Amino acid sequence: MIPTLQWTPEGVRFIDQTRLPLEEAYVLATDYEQVAEVIVTMVVRGAPAIGVSAAYGVALGALRTTAKTTEEFAPEFERVCARLAGTRPTAVNLFWAIDRMKGLFGELRAAGATLDQIKEKMLAEAHAMYEEDIAACKAMGAHGGALLPEDGGVLTHCNAGALATCGYGTALGVIRAAVEQGKKIRVFADETRPFLQGARLTAWELMEDGIDTTVICDNMAASLMRAGAIKAVVVGADRIAANGDVANKIGTYNVAILAKEHGIPFYVAAPWSTIDLKTATGEAIPIEERPQVEVTHHGGKQLTPNGVGIRNPAFDVTPAKYVTAIVTERGVLRAPFSEALKAMQQRS
Amino acid sequence: MIPTLQWTPEGVRFIDQTRLPLEEAYVLATDYEQVAEVIVTMVVRGAPAIGVSAAYGVALGALRTTAKTTEEFAPEFERVCARLAGTRPTAVNLFWAIDRMKGLFGELRAAGATLDQIKEKMLAEAHAMYEEDIAACKAMGAHGGALLPEDGGVLTHCNAGALATCGYGTALGVIRAAVEQGKKIRVFADETRPFLQGARLTAWELMEDGIDTTVICDNMAASLMRAGAIKAVVVGADRIAANGDVANKIGTYNVAILAKEHGIPFYVAAPWSTIDLKTATGEAIPIEERPQVEVTHHGGKQLTPNGVGIRNPAFDVTPAKYVTAIVTERGVLRAPFSEALKAMQQRS
Repeated sequence: MIPTLQWTPEGVRFIDQTRLPLEEAYVLATDYEQVAEVIVTMVVRGAPAIGVSAAYGVALGALRTTAKTTEEFAPEFERVCARLAGTRPTAVNLFWAIDRMKGLFGELRAAGATLDQIKEKMLAEAHAMYEEDIAACKAMGAHGGALLPEDGGVLTHCNAGALATCGYGTALGVIRAAVEQGKKIRVFADETRPFLQGARLTAWELMEDGIDTTVICDNMAASLMRAGAIKAVVVGADRIAANGDVANKIGTYNVAILAKEHGIPFYVAAPWSTIDLKTATGEAIPIEERPQVEVTHHGGKQLTPNGVGIRNPAFDVTPAKYVTAIVTERGVLRAPFSEALKAMQQRS
Repeated sequence: MIPTLQWTPEGVRFIDQTRLPLEEAYVLATDYEQVAEVIVTMVVRGAPAIGVSAAYGVALGALRTTAKTTEEFAPEFERVCARLAGTRPTAVNLFWAIDRMKGLFGELRAAGATLDQIKEKMLAEAHAMYEEDIAACKAMGAHGGALLPEDGGVLTHCNAGALATCGYGTALGVIRAAVEQGKKIRVFADETRPFLQGARLTAWELMEDGIDTTVICDNMAASLMRAGAIKAVVVGADRIAANGDVANKIGTYNVAILAKEHGIPFYVAAPWSTIDLKTATGEAIPIEERPQVEVTHHGGKQLTPNGVGIRNPAFDVTPAKYVTAIVTERGVLRAPFSEALKAMQQRS
């Protein structure tokens, strides 16, 4: 079991994803501000993992308060939620998790709960979200594993794995399930510049599980597709709009176009908490621009000349027309996605 | 003037492209073996620059021989040519340059030239190829500059610049010419993993010339195209087959597909020496697989977990159907390329 984040008596213990694969170091966040820092600095990343981390951050906000009563705590609770919500803009799971904690707080407050009861319930809610996340990944695997080929290469981009969730993974959960079903999957992992989540994290966690994995540079995918080495693509998502447009790690849109051009299915695996029916299309999804130093430097070494322009959008939007299917814990959705998403929302 | 390679009384002086942009270091190759090493280790790279370097390598083979006569030198000449031809497989300019030196040697030998005469003529031939290369780049600029937009972003991949030639550049020569014509070009340079020719070399040489340049990761191109930031793509080539298929730096094929999908013209700029009419299609072009360490490490720092699979093809093939036009020193070619290439070959 890969320990992405774990509750301990002192707070949340995160594996430091900035230091993998060569070092397995851990960071302990004992208050909500430290959880916010851990999200901003990408010690933890991946939409589902960010969501659950934020839930624990809110719970820590309650647990560590010096307020004596629920009413005294209420304005502080708002500040805690605002700080955590301000860490990263694109993954909707962050806002989903905070909203869920806000809803719980509102209910408990209205019911006249004591601050001690609120502390207990909030931690229990974060624990529930942690368990639900793993269960959702397993369900995605069960639904999505069937989509992958019996024998052949599967390309993934970034890390939508155990390290992006509380365990098992979304896209890598689908791959794990296919492997568990006895399929002979050879994974090609895009290294995923600039943060190298593929080269560092996907490679590391798939090797821990003994799954055949080859790292390629992001620009090698088209020639491998043309050579027949890739039979399917499966990626995660940071936010899925109501029309099925998918925001995910920068480069996902490139891969989706290449897959279409080569007639290769392009699958997106994400928990229902990633679906944002309040956002009509991908154009309304805010795209985070990360610090230039992620592109200009690696391991403290400068790559680019001083003063050159740099762009570093952390995500892109893949229009729904490139998506073959969306795999969620509730089942597999296919185009037209607007109708499919609405119908699945109502069913549950 | 960027000093990619320069003849000196001691041999050929190369700017060390593995150390740019932060260090301007030079390597002096005083014999053909050192020229071969400089090509293998990518101190010099870029198809046209490799070709001229090899020509100087052959000339150094003659100049440094201890043989006393042309006939005594003849078998050594074969070994020199074979060593240089074995350095890198994809760029046809290498073989073109060596074949030209072989042809000259054959003529001189048949005419009964002395070894001293052969030495002198070979060095003169290498000098001529150097000057022709710069002239070809200028002519490509004159032909190709007109193709670029009056105002807007132009994407280039890898480095097809002054550093890939004896000066001015092929793709970057086209950009330089457009800028000299008063066009407002903003260059987007794909960083070009794994060797980072874009981030390091294209960025460096365009900044030396004061051209507006922004480095992006290879996986950011599609979202910039969708946002309208890129109006044209121009790249170089390592070999162009008789049907117009283009071998170029890995990732070129990705960019070509993305350009097609967004309705953006995709131009290839290359000297006539890059065109290989003896190779029918791109499928027959050998693709060099470079050492894994280029992908697994950067600046001595390991990126990937131990033991993971790695692919590192240095080039890919872009089928002719994705190419809007090929810019050569002889003019601009458009589809159908088989006919256009044949016609231009016969005309000259």
